[in-house]
Amino acid sequence: MRKRLAIDAMGGDHAPQAIVEGVNQALAAFDDIEIQLYGDEDKIRPYLTSKERVTIIHTREKIASDDEPAKAIRQKKEASMVLAAKAVKNGEADAIVSAGNTGALLAAGLFVVGRIKGIDRPGLLSTLPTTDGQGFDMLDLGANAENTPKHLHQYAILGSFYAKYVRNIDKPRIGLLNNGTEASKGDPLRKEAYDLLANDDSLHFVGNVEARDLMAGVADVIVADGFTGNAVLKTMEGTAMAILGQLKTTLTGGGLRTKLGALLVKDSLRGMKDSLDYSSAGGAVLFGVKAPVIKAHGSSDSQAIYHTIKQTRKMLATEVVTQLVTTFEATEKGTE
Amino acid sequence: MRKRLAIDAMGGDHAPQAIVEGVNQALAAFDDIEIQLYGDEDKIRPYLTSKERVTIIHTREKIASDDEPAKAIRQKKEASMVLAAKAVKNGEADAIVSAGNTGALLAAGLFVVGRIKGIDRPGLLSTLPTTDGQGFDMLDLGANAENTPKHLHQYAILGSFYAKYVRNIDKPRIGLLNNGTEASKGDPLRKEAYDLLANDDSLHFVGNVEARDLMAGVADVIVADGFTGNAVLKTMEGTAMAILGQLKTTLTGGGLRTKLGALLVKDSLRGMKDSLDYSSAGGAVLFGVKAPVIKAHGSSDSQAIYHTIKQTRKMLATEVVTQLVTTFEATEKGTE
Repeated sequence: MRKRLAIDAMGGDHAPQAIVEGVNQALAAFDDIEIQLYGDEDKIRPYLTSKERVTIIHTREKIASDDEPAKAIRQKKEASMVLAAKAVKNGEADAIVSAGNTGALLAAGLFVVGRIKGIDRPGLLSTLPTTDGQGFDMLDLGANAENTPKHLHQYAILGSFYAKYVRNIDKPRIGLLNNGTEASKGDPLRKEAYDLLANDDSLHFVGNVEARDLMAGVADVIVADGFTGNAVLKTMEGTAMAILGQLKTTLTGGGLRTKLGALLVKDSLRGMKDSLDYSSAGGAVLFGVKAPVIKAHGSSDSQAIYHTIKQTRKMLATEVVTQLVTTFEATEKGTE
Repeated sequence: MRKRLAIDAMGGDHAPQAIVEGVNQALAAFDDIEIQLYGDEDKIRPYLTSKERVTIIHTREKIASDDEPAKAIRQKKEASMVLAAKAVKNGEADAIVSAGNTGALLAAGLFVVGRIKGIDRPGLLSTLPTTDGQGFDMLDLGANAENTPKHLHQYAILGSFYAKYVRNIDKPRIGLLNNGTEASKGDPLRKEAYDLLANDDSLHFVGNVEARDLMAGVADVIVADGFTGNAVLKTMEGTAMAILGQLKTTLTGGGLRTKLGALLVKDSLRGMKDSLDYSSAGGAVLFGVKAPVIKAHGSSDSQAIYHTIKQTRKMLATEVVTQLVTTFEATEKGTE
């Protein structure tokens, strides 16, 4: 049976064009998926070139990027994102993808799609770049502002499943983000989490990891509380943006010699920029809910949307969410 | 009266050579300072070209970079760092500088030099780079693993003093590092800190700031808890290192065309790298103790040591620590 993806066509900076064009690409590439496009039919239709395995579910309502998340989900009952989430809840779709309001999608994931039994606090997970090109998964990136040691333990399990099933890493190395590498480091949250991770034989725990070493690929999965994870993610983004911006200014703003040099190194630099761009790994996953809920970056172009659909398809094909359900229900890890 | 700096000659990756050479530079540049060099005289002497305003206080004991900080301070009573801290405590020196074991220097600052009355948790402060070259001060960068809202409030005051006296910013803009810019964002720690900052008329509080915007210069002082501040600092370092490393690999590893281009842009890129290098702002200050306690980066070269001495001199000349003492004792802000 084909996998059915419910896609919010109206979310993101370049919606609906980038979303619909990404869908066109994905439908051409994968014949085992069906797409439901939620949004304004008049605005979607002009970009839609695919004829098969795609339906438009028309609605004019949408959630704005500055809407208050929980309120928007409650009040805008006909919004494209809300209808897409309901389709998943009602079994009419297998996963939801949106490039829209992050907070609203998290709320839709938690309250419409729903948590997996035994998982206390689903976390936001992304695959981020390393210099060796392998990348690492980090969670929680900010679905929660506060976490307990047990939450961090669950994130380790969640991240391990994701790395194994979606990224094909046989025995993912789990690192705990801390303010030093020694076992005794950190606040009480980190110390207790460390003990839980070290004593869980199902995990390949490699110990504490410092933020300085993340891009060097010291672990396949990095476990963080949502507040710190969010700060680290945004620092990576901000620092990379600032440096690449300065690089551009330097090369284009220099004298003739620099300008000529810039012309010669241009292609190589583009290759470097692509290797730092991790949009080919897809979007951020709200992991721990009953179906894949995927947030594509707000600035996604059609290529990024295509990659996010590819990632969602992989999550569905590997049944990683079903594996989570089985594990957490069977071992009751969530309620120990 | 000349300012007297107690300098640990034995700490850091390039000690004592880089330390002593930095001291030579500083003594030549500033005639209003005296330097006390703590360490192994046989190893210091060969590098010391200055003849005046410098004394060597000989000791063979030193703290290693992997020594357990508090224990090292307690047990290695004759270590260069410990003797330097004691000189400050005993009024024989006005400030201490070390490029050695960070934790040990923090412990020496807290337990030998001592906290200013009314300041609960001195914070580690550094001036970090922005793309406009102005930089921003952030604290706490990891002197503490846990903080209360009151600590964050005190960090705002401390940072404000530093930016004003040492960086000559008339009315420093204070930002609270948070997971969103809206006033309602964050965990209870951030929400309570926000209220304290917003209600303190002595501060120019500009609200919540996201880590993504730090290098864009959204504030002059960023207030963070020590755990998050440490993670953000290390992420900035790690990301910058990874990108600049990839840049180097890309330019030197390319074909003839790239290599030629690299040759042409080399000087411009060096200028860019220098602008990202913030060692000219000096070292990290343990701020909130009774005298300047300055941690130079472990990898400091002589130039970085020179800048750290220059920064220490500025702290002494502006009497910023005395200002802090007066403020905290007078208003009893620390005990409200």
